[in-house]
Amino acid sequence: MQNIDTLIHTRWIVPIIPRNQVLENYSLAIDHEKIIDLLPTEDANKKYSAKNTIDRKQHVVMPGLINTHAHTPMNLLRGLADDLQLMDWLQNHIWPAEGKILCPESIYDGSMLAIAEMLRSGTTCFNDHYFYPNDTARASIDASMRASLGLWVGNAPTGWAKDADECLEKAASEYANRPDSKLISYMLAPHSPYITNDGSLLKTKKFADDNNLRIHIHLHETQAEIDIDLKNYGKRPMQRFNELGLLNERLIAVHMVHLTDDEIALCAEKKVHVSHNPESNLKLASGFAPIVKLLNAGVNVCLGTDGAASNNDLDMFGELQTAALIAKGYNQDPTVLDAITTLEMATINGAKALGLEKEIGSIEIGKYADIIAIDFDHIFTQPVYNPISHLVYAMNRMQVSDVWVAGKHLLNHGEFVNLDVKEVIAKANAWAEKI
Amino acid sequence: MQNIDTLIHTRWIVPIIPRNQVLENYSLAIDHEKIIDLLPTEDANKKYSAKNTIDRKQHVVMPGLINTHAHTPMNLLRGLADDLQLMDWLQNHIWPAEGKILCPESIYDGSMLAIAEMLRSGTTCFNDHYFYPNDTARASIDASMRASLGLWVGNAPTGWAKDADECLEKAASEYANRPDSKLISYMLAPHSPYITNDGSLLKTKKFADDNNLRIHIHLHETQAEIDIDLKNYGKRPMQRFNELGLLNERLIAVHMVHLTDDEIALCAEKKVHVSHNPESNLKLASGFAPIVKLLNAGVNVCLGTDGAASNNDLDMFGELQTAALIAKGYNQDPTVLDAITTLEMATINGAKALGLEKEIGSIEIGKYADIIAIDFDHIFTQPVYNPISHLVYAMNRMQVSDVWVAGKHLLNHGEFVNLDVKEVIAKANAWAEKI
Repeated sequence: MQNIDTLIHTRWIVPIIPRNQVLENYSLAIDHEKIIDLLPTEDANKKYSAKNTIDRKQHVVMPGLINTHAHTPMNLLRGLADDLQLMDWLQNHIWPAEGKILCPESIYDGSMLAIAEMLRSGTTCFNDHYFYPNDTARASIDASMRASLGLWVGNAPTGWAKDADECLEKAASEYANRPDSKLISYMLAPHSPYITNDGSLLKTKKFADDNNLRIHIHLHETQAEIDIDLKNYGKRPMQRFNELGLLNERLIAVHMVHLTDDEIALCAEKKVHVSHNPESNLKLASGFAPIVKLLNAGVNVCLGTDGAASNNDLDMFGELQTAALIAKGYNQDPTVLDAITTLEMATINGAKALGLEKEIGSIEIGKYADIIAIDFDHIFTQPVYNPISHLVYAMNRMQVSDVWVAGKHLLNHGEFVNLDVKEVIAKANAWAEKI
Repeated sequence: MQNIDTLIHTRWIVPIIPRNQVLENYSLAIDHEKIIDLLPTEDANKKYSAKNTIDRKQHVVMPGLINTHAHTPMNLLRGLADDLQLMDWLQNHIWPAEGKILCPESIYDGSMLAIAEMLRSGTTCFNDHYFYPNDTARASIDASMRASLGLWVGNAPTGWAKDADECLEKAASEYANRPDSKLISYMLAPHSPYITNDGSLLKTKKFADDNNLRIHIHLHETQAEIDIDLKNYGKRPMQRFNELGLLNERLIAVHMVHLTDDEIALCAEKKVHVSHNPESNLKLASGFAPIVKLLNAGVNVCLGTDGAASNNDLDMFGELQTAALIAKGYNQDPTVLDAITTLEMATINGAKALGLEKEIGSIEIGKYADIIAIDFDHIFTQPVYNPISHLVYAMNRMQVSDVWVAGKHLLNHGEFVNLDVKEVIAKANAWAEKI
């Protein structure tokens, strides 16, 4: 018998790799943060002796979901304003509210509210895009969640910096003072084509290249954004980015709603990662991203929630259901974006976008044990003909019963092991009262 | 002090009528199945002495949701087949499975599985469209849920009847033997333009008129359906129905995805009720119903889930979020289908469609106490700036903590008061094993 940390026995494992596989009556062995084995429960009981043995007999175990586009501190603004035109919403509601509370403490508390929501919902890793990244990192480390933090760059004055040069100084300082944690990684996070000019983008690219970091940016979200570049530069953002050398396998382009067929081909050729945020695109009326065309062209498409101010939840299971449904309606074809393809977008494709595909995104031996269990013994998911179908079309995120990140048990039978939710909510409400 | 059955103290009441109102720190008084008062909690404690006093201090209390299009027994087929073309799905998967198990007992057990799911999710009334309606009625009465049952009519042979005439005989027999319950009402339920010919429709209309019943039918769901009528009758279904005298305030037309502007005006003129089923329309790739145009024309638009085989959940809160989001995306306008309009569709508009607007659909004195409480003290719905926003854009159906139908407490702090969920699931699985 081999001594290990954790042995999880479950009804179904959906490892994501190999594709479309459901392993029944299987067990997962975890030791020193990593997945070390995946085998029939019968064999597992003979081979391993675990410090923690977990029985989840009516559950699905799968990789934790990866949210590739978030603005976690904006959870403090959830439901502040809805059903408005984009500029009315931003200028008259969101920006003034942000201005009232922006500081390291509000960032920490808002991020923690989002982190609690994401962990409760089966998300084990997020890719953030906001100010004070090291304070979000601090919250993530305190909650033992995995995160990729964005170093924000924009030419507009904000509560964070007066211009792009100060943004780049702050980016350098945040990056130099980054926490030493295997859970945390960084990207450059220029805001968008319309708030980041060519000079800033080139400096951002140099910073990224010098430090071997990726770039995470909003791109082709609205027609208005494209019109601005056509007016200012005489070209669409994608063409401008191509000429600046930004289109490559280290770019995560978020939204990508408005794309020509040539631009889709260019994404594929340059290996750009596309983060699809369907609910935000609907709520802000940005439109329907051409996800099926992107996938068919070979582009790596992953999923994100966007911020809670424009969604208004950080529910990756809801997001993947919406992605699958609207792809069918938009393409007038019920066979597109089938259940397993959608699950891949929310797991392994997200890992690829973050450059973490050797570490997370599937249940494979040697990867970190970033995994979740979902209780299917529930009125919403019975009977069970095909667990993969229920993961996309039927289950509710409250059925996520357990979450592990790097082998650490964070959610147990639906309850947080360490995180004090009442305190997290109380702190969030103290900020809300100031708005 | 006046002695009453139940007094509910809560943080927020959203009565739906008057429109867009949020009453804070209010109480609801219930006696003999009905709402008898709605007043500040301070006053309620002085005025009423209740057998049951319910404190729900961080909750929203609102009318129960009304699901205007369901096929409840099809919950037994949830997730059996997905991501297929409509005819492949029906002919090779759904119809053969139905054929294997169709009988009064499977109808009762499948309906009970759906009823449990709907009650757990805050739905207090449903409008069903399936075979063996009195067995679904029996399940609904046993669960104390309100329901409108469809008397099925179609020209195709089914496990229920060999032709439309036998359907009409069975409709007469079911209706004659209907249970005596204030919770239960009936409609005629011809299937669709393509499975119900003119003769059957006229006989169905006569039955409905003779018994003062409404008609509940699938209409203009797909372009293929319209093409069939153009080929067989030389006219679109709406025109054919108009000529048959079927378009009036007693018709609930389900789906209505493909409509010309003239047909939208005709719906308004004839006061046809439209049941919008957005998730089913997306999953089956039927398309995007022109809901904003219908509402602007003055049509009463309500909401439905369709059956679990094509959705795959009976989550009216999910459905109303999807309705609001896709309307914005489809119309390229974030201001359309705002939160309160969407909530009206799921409540009072549903009551109007069923002809029950004097009895249910809002929290008004004299109406039945068909109400629900939702726990907002939850990581998904904090902070709270506007409760109506969270009801549409943020809350999860598992936050529904309490359900009353006609003043009877059916769900208490998230637990069923009488219904044995384990037994319901076990019976459903016994049928699933036969498929």
